Amino acid sequence: MGNGDEIISNKRIIFRDYISGFPKESDMIPTTDTIRLKVPEGSNSVLLKNLYLSCDPYMRGRMTNVDSYIAPFTPGLPVMGYGVAKVIDSGNPNYNEGDYVWGITGWEQYSLLENPEPLTLVKIKYTYLPLSYYTGILGMPGITAYVGFHEIASPKKGEFVFVSAASGAVGQLVGQFAKLMGCYVVGCAGSKEKVDLLKNKFGFDDAFNYKEEHDLVAPLKRYFPEGIDIYFENVGGKMLDAVLANMKLHGRIAACGMISQYNLEESEGVRNNFLIITKRIRMEGFLVFDHLHDYPKFIEVMKQYITEEKIVYVEDTVEGLENAPAALIGLFTGRNVGKQVVVVSRE
Amino acid sequence: MGNGDEIISNKRIIFRDYISGFPKESDMIPTTDTIRLKVPEGSNSVLLKNLYLSCDPYMRGRMTNVDSYIAPFTPGLPVMGYGVAKVIDSGNPNYNEGDYVWGITGWEQYSLLENPEPLTLVKIKYTYLPLSYYTGILGMPGITAYVGFHEIASPKKGEFVFVSAASGAVGQLVGQFAKLMGCYVVGCAGSKEKVDLLKNKFGFDDAFNYKEEHDLVAPLKRYFPEGIDIYFENVGGKMLDAVLANMKLHGRIAACGMISQYNLEESEGVRNNFLIITKRIRMEGFLVFDHLHDYPKFIEVMKQYITEEKIVYVEDTVEGLENAPAALIGLFTGRNVGKQVVVVSRE
Repeated sequence: MGNGDEIISNKRIIFRDYISGFPKESDMIPTTDTIRLKVPEGSNSVLLKNLYLSCDPYMRGRMTNVDSYIAPFTPGLPVMGYGVAKVIDSGNPNYNEGDYVWGITGWEQYSLLENPEPLTLVKIKYTYLPLSYYTGILGMPGITAYVGFHEIASPKKGEFVFVSAASGAVGQLVGQFAKLMGCYVVGCAGSKEKVDLLKNKFGFDDAFNYKEEHDLVAPLKRYFPEGIDIYFENVGGKMLDAVLANMKLHGRIAACGMISQYNLEESEGVRNNFLIITKRIRMEGFLVFDHLHDYPKFIEVMKQYITEEKIVYVEDTVEGLENAPAALIGLFTGRNVGKQVVVVSRE
Repeated sequence: MGNGDEIISNKRIIFRDYISGFPKESDMIPTTDTIRLKVPEGSNSVLLKNLYLSCDPYMRGRMTNVDSYIAPFTPGLPVMGYGVAKVIDSGNPNYNEGDYVWGITGWEQYSLLENPEPLTLVKIKYTYLPLSYYTGILGMPGITAYVGFHEIASPKKGEFVFVSAASGAVGQLVGQFAKLMGCYVVGCAGSKEKVDLLKNKFGFDDAFNYKEEHDLVAPLKRYFPEGIDIYFENVGGKMLDAVLANMKLHGRIAACGMISQYNLEESEGVRNNFLIITKRIRMEGFLVFDHLHDYPKFIEVMKQYITEEKIVYVEDTVEGLENAPAALIGLFTGRNVGKQVVVVSRE
């Protein structure tokens, strides 16, 4: 910094083209460009040095050319996603050189963002906490878990909570929030290692490996003989059907994601919808983007939880921007154990 | 009355045995018994003369031997359902000879009910309104529509409302409630006659015959170019999928029934569940049985609406207990136009 007129090389991961089905590494192409380390004169932009990038399941949706709650990626431009970065230069009054920020950035070493907004590019207040946490527990997955559990699921002490994809970026937090609230919580995940993590690290009351069950209704009946009050839905499809069959009266489903469905040409049909009526279930979908105004409140609560060691967080860290495509794809095969982070640079 | 020791004949419709698939007339057997027109000495019972019986879709569920929110019928005993009756004799302090009541009774000319409860056998306060209305607009379907629309769907003036099975016992009321609230409301039904009724009698802004559409997504897009805020769900299956595809952000689905699914061995799969997340939809099932305590408030509102001709109600009336089985089955083929009532006796 200071040497602002320097033009240096900038490794980037370019989104090739829209896909259907399962994403492949070749859908994301590593290239090297150059970039001038200064924002254009008189612009409102910021220039970021990206430190940590986040792999999140919702990104699969942006690889299909369908306008949903978030626009598709642009072929030929870098993959975009949440990340943690340092401000190298700024023409924007909300950001200063040297600030650390988290928010939507590019999959590249340096990103020039035009007109960033305080809600989508957030200045990091507590830089003494691990910066990578702002891709997870202190970032989008954190507030997703917090809002989804506390606001959408309306939990009460003593209730029975089930979390799918429970060792993931969001799930591990939901389970811990449920325990802090005095709920009984069971999670499912896709390997013995993850199940051990749920029970021994995150304090779930119980956990199971869904890949070892040929029928999902039976294990849920075993773990919830009295039924499920709250289902935190991350996977969809057959799991949702099995959960509906095991819900209690007046149960609530906080629908956060359906990762099992994202790479299918046609979604699996859910057959137990009628139970929503007979059991008077409330199923509610939510997106964290509607709740970002709660972030200032959330960060204070979470900072406290982390400082007091009431909540722990497990990350799966991959070194190097060039390994980001494989890391993203790994989300859909369950390769990651905990929140998937890509380290671009540690400073 | 007076001649209490009289023993007279009692025509009854006996539930034969549990079924799967579509119900047939032969599943319900007309017989003739005798009955003494007096309650047993010292009992808490009431003896009813049944006047009007109600055919309701939920009754299909009681013909299968699965314990759901309401117990299955007992083979060898009469079909049970909502009806309007006159109290002939009573050993119960809550009911007097000569009272008119509505609630769960038997498909027979006379019913002896042990220990009836005020919430399930309701004394009729306004006997000057058509007594048959207590099987519909002033009974269970009425409070279902009222609670489902006003409490579960959280309507706001100017919102876009879609009602399926819209000319039925519940749907015709939901549409009229929506108009009274200042919503735009479209209904669908299964014949030209019903569609005309929706538009010309109940004041729906528009209506269509779903049987004339080979795809349900397209007509919904046509009638709701801006999308649906509220769906009052009576049919399930493909219709639910098509509605999900046409819902607006933050839409609400009040799930009341899924009549298209009741006779299937396996429910149709609903594939658009993921849209619940991306559109932040709240889908909530409800049963009127949870809301019967609202009846006293409801009846005052409805009496007013009827007296002031703000709400109209169409019944499809069948004469004679012996025709009740065919009338019940007709619900599932859409034979009825309006609320299906069976007249056992007009006094």
